[in-house]
Amino acid sequence: MRFYLAVILAASFQFSVAQTAEINTKDDAAMIKEIFDTALTGGKAHDWLRFLSLQIGGRLSGSVEAEQAVNYTKTELEKLGLDRVYLQPVMVPKWVRGAPEFAYIETTPGVTTTVPITALGGSIATASMGLKAEVVEVKSLDELEQLGRSVIEGKIVFYNRPMEPTLINTFAAYGGCVDQRYSGAEVAAKFGAVGVIVRSMNLRVDDFPHTGAMSYGDLPLDQRIPAAAISTKGAELLSATLSLNKQTQFYFKQNSRNFPDVKSYNVIGEIKGSLYPNEIMVVGGHLDSWDLGDGSHDDGAGVVQSMDVLSLFKKIGYRPKRTIRVVLFMNEENGLRGGNEYARVALAEGENHVFALESDSGGFTPRGFMFDTDQETFEQIKAWSNYFYPYLSDRFQLGGSGADIGPLKPQGLILAGLKPDSQRYFDHHHSDNDRFEHVNKRELELGAAAMTSLIYLMDNYLPQTN
Amino acid sequence: MRFYLAVILAASFQFSVAQTAEINTKDDAAMIKEIFDTALTGGKAHDWLRFLSLQIGGRLSGSVEAEQAVNYTKTELEKLGLDRVYLQPVMVPKWVRGAPEFAYIETTPGVTTTVPITALGGSIATASMGLKAEVVEVKSLDELEQLGRSVIEGKIVFYNRPMEPTLINTFAAYGGCVDQRYSGAEVAAKFGAVGVIVRSMNLRVDDFPHTGAMSYGDLPLDQRIPAAAISTKGAELLSATLSLNKQTQFYFKQNSRNFPDVKSYNVIGEIKGSLYPNEIMVVGGHLDSWDLGDGSHDDGAGVVQSMDVLSLFKKIGYRPKRTIRVVLFMNEENGLRGGNEYARVALAEGENHVFALESDSGGFTPRGFMFDTDQETFEQIKAWSNYFYPYLSDRFQLGGSGADIGPLKPQGLILAGLKPDSQRYFDHHHSDNDRFEHVNKRELELGAAAMTSLIYLMDNYLPQTN
Repeated sequence: MRFYLAVILAASFQFSVAQTAEINTKDDAAMIKEIFDTALTGGKAHDWLRFLSLQIGGRLSGSVEAEQAVNYTKTELEKLGLDRVYLQPVMVPKWVRGAPEFAYIETTPGVTTTVPITALGGSIATASMGLKAEVVEVKSLDELEQLGRSVIEGKIVFYNRPMEPTLINTFAAYGGCVDQRYSGAEVAAKFGAVGVIVRSMNLRVDDFPHTGAMSYGDLPLDQRIPAAAISTKGAELLSATLSLNKQTQFYFKQNSRNFPDVKSYNVIGEIKGSLYPNEIMVVGGHLDSWDLGDGSHDDGAGVVQSMDVLSLFKKIGYRPKRTIRVVLFMNEENGLRGGNEYARVALAEGENHVFALESDSGGFTPRGFMFDTDQETFEQIKAWSNYFYPYLSDRFQLGGSGADIGPLKPQGLILAGLKPDSQRYFDHHHSDNDRFEHVNKRELELGAAAMTSLIYLMDNYLPQTN
Repeated sequence: MRFYLAVILAASFQFSVAQTAEINTKDDAAMIKEIFDTALTGGKAHDWLRFLSLQIGGRLSGSVEAEQAVNYTKTELEKLGLDRVYLQPVMVPKWVRGAPEFAYIETTPGVTTTVPITALGGSIATASMGLKAEVVEVKSLDELEQLGRSVIEGKIVFYNRPMEPTLINTFAAYGGCVDQRYSGAEVAAKFGAVGVIVRSMNLRVDDFPHTGAMSYGDLPLDQRIPAAAISTKGAELLSATLSLNKQTQFYFKQNSRNFPDVKSYNVIGEIKGSLYPNEIMVVGGHLDSWDLGDGSHDDGAGVVQSMDVLSLFKKIGYRPKRTIRVVLFMNEENGLRGGNEYARVALAEGENHVFALESDSGGFTPRGFMFDTDQETFEQIKAWSNYFYPYLSDRFQLGGSGADIGPLKPQGLILAGLKPDSQRYFDHHHSDNDRFEHVNKRELELGAAAMTSLIYLMDNYLPQTN
């Protein structure tokens, strides 16, 4: 029944939400309940995550662990009896942290306090003896430019603008700070700084330094300076020390290094659509993670939730009308090569992608979804939020989706992202504190169920496009 | 301006929501933003909880720790510059766990596996040598009655009905199981059982046994039997063992004991209302906890959030029109004596309570509130949920409030309870896993801010009653 309706409505290129609501509400609500019940009683996400996190661990692009994760998830997808499981080759950057970093604050010669730091992803090493210099604390890239070369030259620049605690969406607070981490070294180097220390992107004050991607932009190799993140507690200590003594020196040592690109893979599995096999819906997360911790929230959670979407459809015996493809993207963290390659191949092969959903905001209790589409389409989708009300995941917002699916956008599809509760996310993100024990099984499963339900609705109510 | 409006509208005994919406929306939204901003930047809840949890710890009624908690919170309330801080005496039960419990499964004589158990609150001890008997596993009190005395007599009854994982509200799953814990021993004793083991009220399968209140009803002293909870993993093991070997024996030993009632206190602090000092709004949680863990979520969180309501009003310079009273109730867990005494005194003194709000569902990210009132009043209150939308705590439901404020209900006021996300709650509840490290500072503060905002709205829009 839904089939015929879909075909008829396709002519108008409108979602069939309103018209079909009366006919299908009961079916759909019952199907969504079955999806949630199945996820909460027979979901595989948590078991997969246990292996990925505890048996493999952090999976930085180009590492042995990333390779292990490719093989493990491919094998697990093959067990699901999908129509096709394959690897999509992609060249990825290989950055290696090397020996543990070491840093201290020196108020007067010989009086030192060790503080936790971590090299930023992509940073060069310090000299082998380390780097020691006076420190200039700033709150922004702008402030640095105002101070100018005379103040900055020969110093270590300490970026210390904290995440804004009054923002309820902690991703907005992250977005408001991350320029310090990403571009801090590039800008500081232009004013003659010799190194960069960035306050970790963390709303808590604790001892975990948080790494993350940085870029030297177009700086020549010989002008690049080493950059590291300091724990928030270390940042508070350094700032307090500087306020007492401007001559305070900071020492740090790291031997991180960039190697030539290496070959890796996106892992892909799909169930062929029964009616519109050429219309492809993607669900995914990124398989790589940083090397600190085990990457359980970022983005092990998104990987196993995406895998569980296909597993749950199999379990409840739902045969999708459109092709559903799980894509485990490689190298979101420091290059987005997997996402770019997937989009490039899709375009080159003339594939027709109609929807893509990413989970890359942690495995916490789901609150809803974000959609990257036009206002009119969003309003139609938003009508479905009622289906998610019983599962407390009915907050649908316009704007945002996921980094890995972003490159598909020019192909004219609807993009979406799962929105879990964000309060705890930056306690873990990119740090040694991103660990399996901090993922709650039920929260993870509720996210997988919400994703499966959204894909189910898209499968049934998207207008047919060819 | 709000003052005059409130007086005028009071005549109709209706909330002034609709009429005042146009006038006050901007003021109220701004005030609520100020409340949230202040909670997230200068809230005291997390610091108070750190002391309560890490310096005092589990605070079972009648214990030294409960006494310490009374003194600590009274002292902290006094520092806030309230109009009145006082202790309300109340006699409470004193049950003492004694030496750590010990239990094992014995499949054949001498072949034993130790399993984690904890005496239920109120349970008697086993004989000093412990208790060993064959086991009858049941899934419900009804099943026990169907089996009858011939099967039960001389055995240990093992109640093993798990919490229902498909219920999104985990408190509903708890409600569907807790009869086993509360009444299991009373019913089993009537059929001649010699002891009771109850599967812990926990949705996870782990090694933590969860205690909680139980009752022998009107069983004479000499017919009472010892009762303990077994960890969920222990329960799975015991059940699997029994399915292989019905002659499996279970051994447990505990020396918990009831003592005569002792004197304790509700801790009360208040800000006198500027316009209607005789109209009292209560905000509270319970100061006692179980003796396992440190009681951070149950209900340290509710205690410090309630204290922060008054602190936040002080901080932003808001002078309430009605009297706001924080009440830290003693003995919610095994007697509700504090809640009952508070209500008794309120009635005896002819006090006029118009609203009471409790936080006793954990310190997790707030989702909204539950209200115990009539449908019409609820609909008016629900219009305020828009104010909570930006803070993701706008889920208002009719039904439910809090145990400690329940006894006030006959006095005809509106009751409410904070509704945090419930997915993780029973990982911690009543177990050694209820610890400070599992409370997230921001989530705790968001709850305190939501509570403060609701009280602010009640203060301004409740109809005046005398």
